[in-house]
Amino acid sequence: MRMYDIILKKRGGGELTPVEIGFFVDGYTSGEIPDYQASALMMAVYFRGMTEAETACLTMAMARSGDQVDLSSIPGVKADKHSTGGVGDKTTLIAAPVAAACGVPVAKMSGRGLGHTGGTVDKLESIPGLCTSMDRERFLEQVRRVGLCVAGQSGNLAPADKKLYALRDVTATVDSMPLIAASIMSKKIAAGSDAIVLDVKTGSGAFMKTEEQALALAREMVAIGENVGRRVTALITDMDMPLGHCIGNALEVMEAVEVLRGGGPEDLARVSLELAANMLHLAGKGELPACRALAREAISSGRALEKLCQMAAAQGGDARVLEDFSLFPKAALCREVLAEQSGYLAAVDTEACGTASVLLGAGREKKGDAVDHAAGIVMLKKPGDRVEKGEALARLYTSCEERFAQGRERYLKALTFAEEPPAPRELILARVGRDGTERPE
Amino acid sequence: MRMYDIILKKRGGGELTPVEIGFFVDGYTSGEIPDYQASALMMAVYFRGMTEAETACLTMAMARSGDQVDLSSIPGVKADKHSTGGVGDKTTLIAAPVAAACGVPVAKMSGRGLGHTGGTVDKLESIPGLCTSMDRERFLEQVRRVGLCVAGQSGNLAPADKKLYALRDVTATVDSMPLIAASIMSKKIAAGSDAIVLDVKTGSGAFMKTEEQALALAREMVAIGENVGRRVTALITDMDMPLGHCIGNALEVMEAVEVLRGGGPEDLARVSLELAANMLHLAGKGELPACRALAREAISSGRALEKLCQMAAAQGGDARVLEDFSLFPKAALCREVLAEQSGYLAAVDTEACGTASVLLGAGREKKGDAVDHAAGIVMLKKPGDRVEKGEALARLYTSCEERFAQGRERYLKALTFAEEPPAPRELILARVGRDGTERPE
Repeated sequence: MRMYDIILKKRGGGELTPVEIGFFVDGYTSGEIPDYQASALMMAVYFRGMTEAETACLTMAMARSGDQVDLSSIPGVKADKHSTGGVGDKTTLIAAPVAAACGVPVAKMSGRGLGHTGGTVDKLESIPGLCTSMDRERFLEQVRRVGLCVAGQSGNLAPADKKLYALRDVTATVDSMPLIAASIMSKKIAAGSDAIVLDVKTGSGAFMKTEEQALALAREMVAIGENVGRRVTALITDMDMPLGHCIGNALEVMEAVEVLRGGGPEDLARVSLELAANMLHLAGKGELPACRALAREAISSGRALEKLCQMAAAQGGDARVLEDFSLFPKAALCREVLAEQSGYLAAVDTEACGTASVLLGAGREKKGDAVDHAAGIVMLKKPGDRVEKGEALARLYTSCEERFAQGRERYLKALTFAEEPPAPRELILARVGRDGTERPE
Repeated sequence: MRMYDIILKKRGGGELTPVEIGFFVDGYTSGEIPDYQASALMMAVYFRGMTEAETACLTMAMARSGDQVDLSSIPGVKADKHSTGGVGDKTTLIAAPVAAACGVPVAKMSGRGLGHTGGTVDKLESIPGLCTSMDRERFLEQVRRVGLCVAGQSGNLAPADKKLYALRDVTATVDSMPLIAASIMSKKIAAGSDAIVLDVKTGSGAFMKTEEQALALAREMVAIGENVGRRVTALITDMDMPLGHCIGNALEVMEAVEVLRGGGPEDLARVSLELAANMLHLAGKGELPACRALAREAISSGRALEKLCQMAAAQGGDARVLEDFSLFPKAALCREVLAEQSGYLAAVDTEACGTASVLLGAGREKKGDAVDHAAGIVMLKKPGDRVEKGEALARLYTSCEERFAQGRERYLKALTFAEEPPAPRELILARVGRDGTERPE
């Protein structure tokens, strides 16, 4: 078998066999197949696409290229969730404890923030003492005991995907639906859960700018699940404005706790509960409406918040901060941004909002940068709100005047004002499952 | 400027600017742009194509990537010819002396044979003592003095093309018309001639298997000439059977001399004279019919053969062999291949014929192999001929029984017999010039 023939076949629109895909993934991972042949194949895939069977094969070959987490020692159906990335997206901090509180074990690996999006690991680390880095045995032990663990990615998960993604990133072959889908799913499959709920974001702050693209990606990923024997559901949710009001690590943990206390912003609560309900449903806890009721009950009873506290404590964190926010690290500087005009706040450039938060210190521009856990933005006005000149638009938390000035400038530029309020947007646009796509009522 | 953006633009079907193409070619040649980005771009070009302007830019950027031969010290319009490669193609040995005998200087760089096709340099070196390797000054001096020099490629011509071709060869991106055209033309343009006649072969022994492909390539190359200010004409000629009867280095020189003496096979004479006439026409020696007459006269007067003898002598060769063929190196073994059946010889797999000749020792399977100048094939029967069982089909020249057996087996497999003679084929299918495509009368 020759890599040349595999490129030629895909270039001509042919369907690669499992053996050919395995040959490519194994050879590329081991270094026997050079980058220049892999990038030529990726470009041919960009133009020719991949069938469902090919995409599933690629996913599994990448999932098998490194460690695979074995969750079989944990009883029951294990559920995971994954977001394609957004700004102010703290849904994991809500949906995971809700699912765990309802008896569905959640063994989740999360990432750190990079660029304009945040990462759950950074958010959790704003809880003093909390550790997200642990060995596999301790991770599994915590899930068995507490029912919930959110850790940083450890071990060597899907190294083929890591290498291939780095190549695609510099050869303009990232935005191919089957390749994006295989990349995400290979890591989720290697992470071992039986049921996976995907939150595919769409809008100005998302990688998928249109609902159509988001739907296409969701369908690819659900099809992969179907083909490899995992239960997968995807929700298409709006990321045309940040979710909730808070952007920044400690600020987002506090907002998530507000939701777990039964309050918090309505949009955040709705998306989080729907994600949790779908995790419960996939894990066999009943029909969706019943699972929604279970999720609500986990919150109203306080059991979901308790679960988060148990998890924080189990990971060495000071869980008291979740009851007394004054114990969170404090920003040196907290200033309001005032409106320079009156009108309706019509839109937010969500990506720019995320960047403003990075400028304040809440995120990192490149790998390895330190993060200021206290920094961030509390949006006092969101699209649709009426604003009078001089009124406070947001509160910015940061470490010094210079960062404040940079963050303020970027934040103000992200806002659009209008005479009339904008048309309201759907928050949850669709649900894609093995039986097709439905629009939630 | 970033290579990433150039790939992205081409991937989206955009037209690259001269600056972008220059950035790519220069960066790739110097090693700043890695192979994996270049191969991704080549694959995007395969799918998206290139405009005439882009192809011309790429050609010139590659031509400028290394040495460029300066022929300005030679008075007059300098003419060159190029064949896309065939079997038994010794037209350079005829057309170049004819053009030179008519006062058009020919300063030609030729290649060695590789795979199933032969190379003019190997053929010339079958003339004892003849040297094709010389420095630039001696090359130019010979053209000024004799009007004709055929040398091996020296110096560093179009290194960008060399590097890019090697990459395309292993990434399934060779067969893109604009890339093939730019590759050929970059070397021709760096070689310095004002007027270039291209012989684009089509048929079983050619790289372009169909007339349609050959026409497309011819048009790309003529358009490049138009765009970069060189006079370019292309002939589409048949390579569904070998040209003439002889395949192999010394054998082909003898057959070319036969044509220069006014005899030789009709197909070979016709293609060679048409190439020469087009060289004369492009060089401003008159309308095509007048140029054909000039070419015929150069042969009937003996001046063209004299020119070849002058050239051979100037390059240190023993020109007496061109008058007395018995002075050529002799093969140790000369055997006939007999027909095992009666019928009409219907077709020859021309590529297989070339391979048979390589097996006999006339060519090389990999770079650096030695060549047996005396080895080769004389076809006694060509497609269309009636053959009786036991009659001689060909004479094979080689060094030993083992090679003869291999060559014979391959040669016989290349032949197809039939009850009826095959339909005659056009020899010169079309002529592509700046004014369009015409079918010769």
